[in-house]
Amino acid sequence: MKSDLDALMLAHDVDVLLVNGPAYSNPAMMYLTGGGHITHAELIKKRGEQPVLFCGPMEREEAARTGLPIRLYSEYPIADRMKAANGNAALADALRLKQQLIDVGVTRGRVAIYGVVEAGPLFANLTQVAKMLPELEFTGFVYDPIFDGAMMTKEPAEIERIRQVGKITTEVVGRVADYLTGQRVKDEVLVKPDGQPVTVSDVKSHIDLWLAELGAANPEATIFAIGRDAGVPHSAGTPTDVMRLGQSIVFDIFPCEAGGGYFYDFTRTWSLGYATDEVLSLYEQVHTVYKDLAAGLKPGQPFIEVQRRTNDLFEAMGHNTLRKQSDATEGYIHSVGHGVGLKIHEMPFSGLASGPEDKLVPGSVFTLEPGLYYPSRNMGVRIEDTYATRADGSFEVLVEYPYDLVLPVKK
Amino acid sequence: MKSDLDALMLAHDVDVLLVNGPAYSNPAMMYLTGGGHITHAELIKKRGEQPVLFCGPMEREEAARTGLPIRLYSEYPIADRMKAANGNAALADALRLKQQLIDVGVTRGRVAIYGVVEAGPLFANLTQVAKMLPELEFTGFVYDPIFDGAMMTKEPAEIERIRQVGKITTEVVGRVADYLTGQRVKDEVLVKPDGQPVTVSDVKSHIDLWLAELGAANPEATIFAIGRDAGVPHSAGTPTDVMRLGQSIVFDIFPCEAGGGYFYDFTRTWSLGYATDEVLSLYEQVHTVYKDLAAGLKPGQPFIEVQRRTNDLFEAMGHNTLRKQSDATEGYIHSVGHGVGLKIHEMPFSGLASGPEDKLVPGSVFTLEPGLYYPSRNMGVRIEDTYATRADGSFEVLVEYPYDLVLPVKK
Repeated sequence: MKSDLDALMLAHDVDVLLVNGPAYSNPAMMYLTGGGHITHAELIKKRGEQPVLFCGPMEREEAARTGLPIRLYSEYPIADRMKAANGNAALADALRLKQQLIDVGVTRGRVAIYGVVEAGPLFANLTQVAKMLPELEFTGFVYDPIFDGAMMTKEPAEIERIRQVGKITTEVVGRVADYLTGQRVKDEVLVKPDGQPVTVSDVKSHIDLWLAELGAANPEATIFAIGRDAGVPHSAGTPTDVMRLGQSIVFDIFPCEAGGGYFYDFTRTWSLGYATDEVLSLYEQVHTVYKDLAAGLKPGQPFIEVQRRTNDLFEAMGHNTLRKQSDATEGYIHSVGHGVGLKIHEMPFSGLASGPEDKLVPGSVFTLEPGLYYPSRNMGVRIEDTYATRADGSFEVLVEYPYDLVLPVKK
Repeated sequence: MKSDLDALMLAHDVDVLLVNGPAYSNPAMMYLTGGGHITHAELIKKRGEQPVLFCGPMEREEAARTGLPIRLYSEYPIADRMKAANGNAALADALRLKQQLIDVGVTRGRVAIYGVVEAGPLFANLTQVAKMLPELEFTGFVYDPIFDGAMMTKEPAEIERIRQVGKITTEVVGRVADYLTGQRVKDEVLVKPDGQPVTVSDVKSHIDLWLAELGAANPEATIFAIGRDAGVPHSAGTPTDVMRLGQSIVFDIFPCEAGGGYFYDFTRTWSLGYATDEVLSLYEQVHTVYKDLAAGLKPGQPFIEVQRRTNDLFEAMGHNTLRKQSDATEGYIHSVGHGVGLKIHEMPFSGLASGPEDKLVPGSVFTLEPGLYYPSRNMGVRIEDTYATRADGSFEVLVEYPYDLVLPVKK
């Protein structure tokens, strides 16, 4: 929770958080500001103090809505800085950051860098300011323990926002199912009223439209992958692919609140009209593993234990795994889940990035998504729901949705 | 143009471009890959050579569509790197970047950093790799002359993509006008069929829906600001504000291709039912300046000259400007235009960021957007179109749209 930030800063020897970039599509900035249309800002938070938000005067009204103390860029006149920098515009830019730090009393200590930004300008500014304020040490975390650590335990209001996105997500998935089952079949392929085949592109257009209509955004696109593409976990699908009966379709959809905000993550695997024995068998194995994992979740459990269990189960079924072969491209070849919040992938992690803090503690929101992939046999299967850990240690799927593999089609 | 990159690298003493992050919503990566659903990648381009794209094996199919040479992360097994890093996961991460650079023959020289990414992990990795490969110098540009310089001159196919987004944009603007003029008026406020007032939030919901329907995305949100908000250039508008007659509305819409891509930028100012004398006078002044600027554009002209002309004209009309007072919040308080492409703001710049290269050369696509702002008098006006400079040096508005201030309403 947000109130954990100071303790996490202390535990990781960080005196100051420097968060850069816009207040949208930028998790750390959104977490502290609550979002809003602020296109360019810095936020400086000293340990034990409230963050100070710096932004342009044109965005002062949006900034005021954050409730944070605000300082405007106009307090740092460009003319003065250009003069001090002998006309070097890049140096003048760094001089503003230097003065911002000084103005909030940051001239020494360890400053951790955050924010989704164009890396070049920030790198240039930090390099300059590090020379000007040599008692400051800028640092970054590859695996961030501070924001990610705080964000890992959600407050009830955050979980409800995630559930609302989940309701939109499953409503859209239901509409896609209705759309597909409502089409005619010609030569084993779905066709639209005009006789043209339904394509992946058609399906995705509807998804984007329905998400927008229901108040969600789709910044990371959607996976709608059929046949061989379904066997490649992150293939988004080929836009021109047609909806052929009896092929596995991996439909992985992960929208967020409109304007950038909390995400939801959800996958179903479908086969139109009928399923081949091969696809059905693969599906049943994944579904069996999914149910085993869901039933076996333990409060406070390290997420990596669920990953181990998944590897054990799939290997016992005779599948290859990344644990057995790190460059495997067939079998079970990704991690079993990840946290979901302002980032689509966040703590707790279950795979290679999983550390001792990655546990299924109360307030954690995470996916469970076992899958099996055989591109050489033109098929793949994944089942995914998003779970929350309740305060009492029990688990809940945030939004229920049926697990049918076969979507019936018109005769 | 892309073919300018090598010459620009040489001119700015850069040996290598290191581009980080996803292939969407990330201009430099999109420019070189053409986009696609690649969530995590690095691209290393040595001067005079083709870029090499590094990504995860799960995204190899999407990566293959870029046509670039590809290397997979699975060539850098985590187990080996963790061993070499004595179990330090952050160091193991840096070891991959180090090896990627070595594998494409980059062990010395000046490496410029690009990419919209979470800054902390990249900063951490670069700090580590700089220690491991001391003959490398990492650098960043506050005002990038390389990608921005290349992107500033668009090829005809790029301009056509921008025009297509412009057609969608103005189609949506027309639909918003139809939606507003189709409502009933009650007590000087637009009301929906259910008797509830039309709000900014209602209007924005329709905008997002129509953009999605027409194949565009809205990553940077939309400004729909009425009354006092219209007087604050970057106020996005207050969601609960109602549509009161006779108030200026600044409607600034800047969508991009669905999935992240080329942008368009467009603003009209409206007043519902009628305009007050004060708003009408302000509008006529802005429109006069707009027409003067548009008629006076010269091929090859430094964009900052257009900015000077705008300041001259508005000051002659008696308005304050940022040129006269750098912290002014009333009058003409922003720059007159900016380039538009894979970024919503790019070269050529007309304001503080404008340098000697920021010229209206053939292939440049830019906005012209004079405005006047008086929040203390509850009004603001901006008019904006996106222009392209043709090969013959003439200019064109990419998409035409009427300049009416007053939108009639039902009696």
